[in-house]
Amino acid sequence: MLEFSKYFNFDTTPELEKVMSHAMDAVKKEKESQRIGYYDLPTDSLKHLKVLENIDTKHVKQLVIIGIGGSSLGIKAIDSLLRPYTSDVKEILYLENSDPLTISNTLHKIKKEEALFFVISKSGSTIETTSILKTVIAYCKIDLEGKDRERMFIITDQGSVLSDFAQHHKLYEFNIPDNVGGRFSVLSAVGVVPLQIAGYDMKSILKGADTLTQSFFNGKEAHILEKACYLYLNAEKESINVLFSYADSLEDLTKWYVQLWGESLGKIDSKGKRVGLTPIGLIGAVDQHSFLQLIIEGPQNKNVTFITIKDFQKDLAIPDISLHGIEKTDFINGQSFNRLINAQCDATMQSVNEANVGTDMINLDKVSAENIGAMIAYFELLTSLVGVMFDVNTYDQPGVELGKVILYKNLGK
Amino acid sequence: MLEFSKYFNFDTTPELEKVMSHAMDAVKKEKESQRIGYYDLPTDSLKHLKVLENIDTKHVKQLVIIGIGGSSLGIKAIDSLLRPYTSDVKEILYLENSDPLTISNTLHKIKKEEALFFVISKSGSTIETTSILKTVIAYCKIDLEGKDRERMFIITDQGSVLSDFAQHHKLYEFNIPDNVGGRFSVLSAVGVVPLQIAGYDMKSILKGADTLTQSFFNGKEAHILEKACYLYLNAEKESINVLFSYADSLEDLTKWYVQLWGESLGKIDSKGKRVGLTPIGLIGAVDQHSFLQLIIEGPQNKNVTFITIKDFQKDLAIPDISLHGIEKTDFINGQSFNRLINAQCDATMQSVNEANVGTDMINLDKVSAENIGAMIAYFELLTSLVGVMFDVNTYDQPGVELGKVILYKNLGK
Repeated sequence: MLEFSKYFNFDTTPELEKVMSHAMDAVKKEKESQRIGYYDLPTDSLKHLKVLENIDTKHVKQLVIIGIGGSSLGIKAIDSLLRPYTSDVKEILYLENSDPLTISNTLHKIKKEEALFFVISKSGSTIETTSILKTVIAYCKIDLEGKDRERMFIITDQGSVLSDFAQHHKLYEFNIPDNVGGRFSVLSAVGVVPLQIAGYDMKSILKGADTLTQSFFNGKEAHILEKACYLYLNAEKESINVLFSYADSLEDLTKWYVQLWGESLGKIDSKGKRVGLTPIGLIGAVDQHSFLQLIIEGPQNKNVTFITIKDFQKDLAIPDISLHGIEKTDFINGQSFNRLINAQCDATMQSVNEANVGTDMINLDKVSAENIGAMIAYFELLTSLVGVMFDVNTYDQPGVELGKVILYKNLGK
Repeated sequence: MLEFSKYFNFDTTPELEKVMSHAMDAVKKEKESQRIGYYDLPTDSLKHLKVLENIDTKHVKQLVIIGIGGSSLGIKAIDSLLRPYTSDVKEILYLENSDPLTISNTLHKIKKEEALFFVISKSGSTIETTSILKTVIAYCKIDLEGKDRERMFIITDQGSVLSDFAQHHKLYEFNIPDNVGGRFSVLSAVGVVPLQIAGYDMKSILKGADTLTQSFFNGKEAHILEKACYLYLNAEKESINVLFSYADSLEDLTKWYVQLWGESLGKIDSKGKRVGLTPIGLIGAVDQHSFLQLIIEGPQNKNVTFITIKDFQKDLAIPDISLHGIEKTDFINGQSFNRLINAQCDATMQSVNEANVGTDMINLDKVSAENIGAMIAYFELLTSLVGVMFDVNTYDQPGVELGKVILYKNLGK
């Protein structure tokens, strides 16, 4: 279960009601017209689970994910959160960046005879991904004509050049719907196929996302609309949205959020104005010792969303030891780290509120597949709503094209 | 060698010359009056290396660092950068956060008989650090009266409660100078002692820092003053400073930078005004697929510093394989990932410049101890200069105190 609490000031007015109902209508239209497809993934992706029932992966011990951006961030987010709570989950290696050191180190860890390879690219021609694919084929001596074909899973758009490659070699192929963008694709084949094979309960993740999505479209999640409206209204003043997550295992989720938020909303709007909100991911309590000072005393250009996990399920008591010199910390003896980290979050939120910085909180009763699915749907719906209010195309990324053109030219294409 | 290039527009005027010379004078005074001590660490910390010559740590295989914020970020930054290039370096485990899952997982990895423990806290009473210390003592059954005393290294301020603990049990103790703040302490005993024992060449790191520091105080690094002035001048408009590092191993350095920058400059100035600059750390090429869109088309409230490594020293060629369907990527075959990632940085910087976003670049000819030392000194000096221009106390963090008071109250102290 997810509990949402808001502490920022939001009083609705007839004017704002209009903004919110317009956004709600627009998002409904995106869904119903099937112009945007991610809303339907929680049910649509069940078909992939059916297909996987007929592929024997019991002998597999290792998954190698070759993908970057929307083709890896969501997978990592779920993997990091659920791994500590899942038994018998397979090892996952990630080959993302064009960093020669990282690639070398990861190549050394691949055990081909126990591995499956997932090549993930929506367009099919992502330069990091195709270059790493070639490197893996050469390094692991992958025989695309023979038995190794069964190790290769291609996840891409129907009709892409990578799909052509998959069909030519008769590899496993799963498609991303045309109307689902990379950063909204974690619940498509992109995330569902490798994570299910790895041993995660994707059906429950989809169910969690479905429940929240349905509830939202049935008008029962007004808080999401209100938050979107608050963020939109205050976008000029509070241009930075901090996601302050109180658990180390949430770090990859914050990275997924940064892509979703930054790339969806950082746009030129229909009137030619540059708009957008800047996402920042922090981890508590660590970043209380780093970024917090700036939130409290720096310019009031931020608001903060806290995420906490009520029950870590694996707790640890602080021993009842009194150490010479530091007896003044004895008051904490016998309490648990689970309680400490949550108390730290509460205290930080209170001190941030005292500094008149807007905050809200998402509390997970525990880390579970359903909760993660719901959280993914929550952030995606919030992004879509703010995108409508900003009057931008939430789903494209025209700004990154020029860099690619320059790169290809510089590399002699 | 570090090469600094700037692409932002900065034309000096007599007015600005005054701002810069005032900042330079103020920083010189901080150093000469010994009010601020980090400037002298590159020479002062050599004494720790002398002491370590007489402590036999050859049998040690593992270091356990117990510390958070300024007591771990700098150590991790250096460890991550140099580990791939250093042979026979010892394993380092970090116990930082109050996250019960992470603490449990890390405890399981400790092999006491092969380990040294470093308890690092400037104040000596950091709640995460003392709580974890107690947990480690109980879990590893550390005998503070017997032989285990030789495994315990305490790094703290002279006269702190933790120093009292160290002296009571006759543990190894190293002190942080009073006039060196936590986030400026990486080149004090905080970083020097554990990293030297781990097997890193701290003498060369100190030398790199010393060379840059001396050169700066001899007036030969005008670019640092100019950059500080540019950042100060444009602070309202460009309130976000992005550090875009093109190497996975630079991620921990960006986290160290975020603390240094955010906590030093996010302050109420002498006139009662909230000032500060918001630091964001990105990793290329990964974040081209995430945050770049926002930089290019979003609000022009950012500037970007790129860091590149000219020669990764361990390179990898993209194999000359033509894959059916994706032949259009063949143009890159035979080139290297080292070249690709640097070409990606160049292309991104060009596209960011085209969008009229101010940029500059720090280019390391390679990852070396000297270069890392110089980079640390560079960011610290830059921070001090901007702090003077902002008219804040760069070295305190009053904003985080309230949270501590609330926490202690809530935990029943």
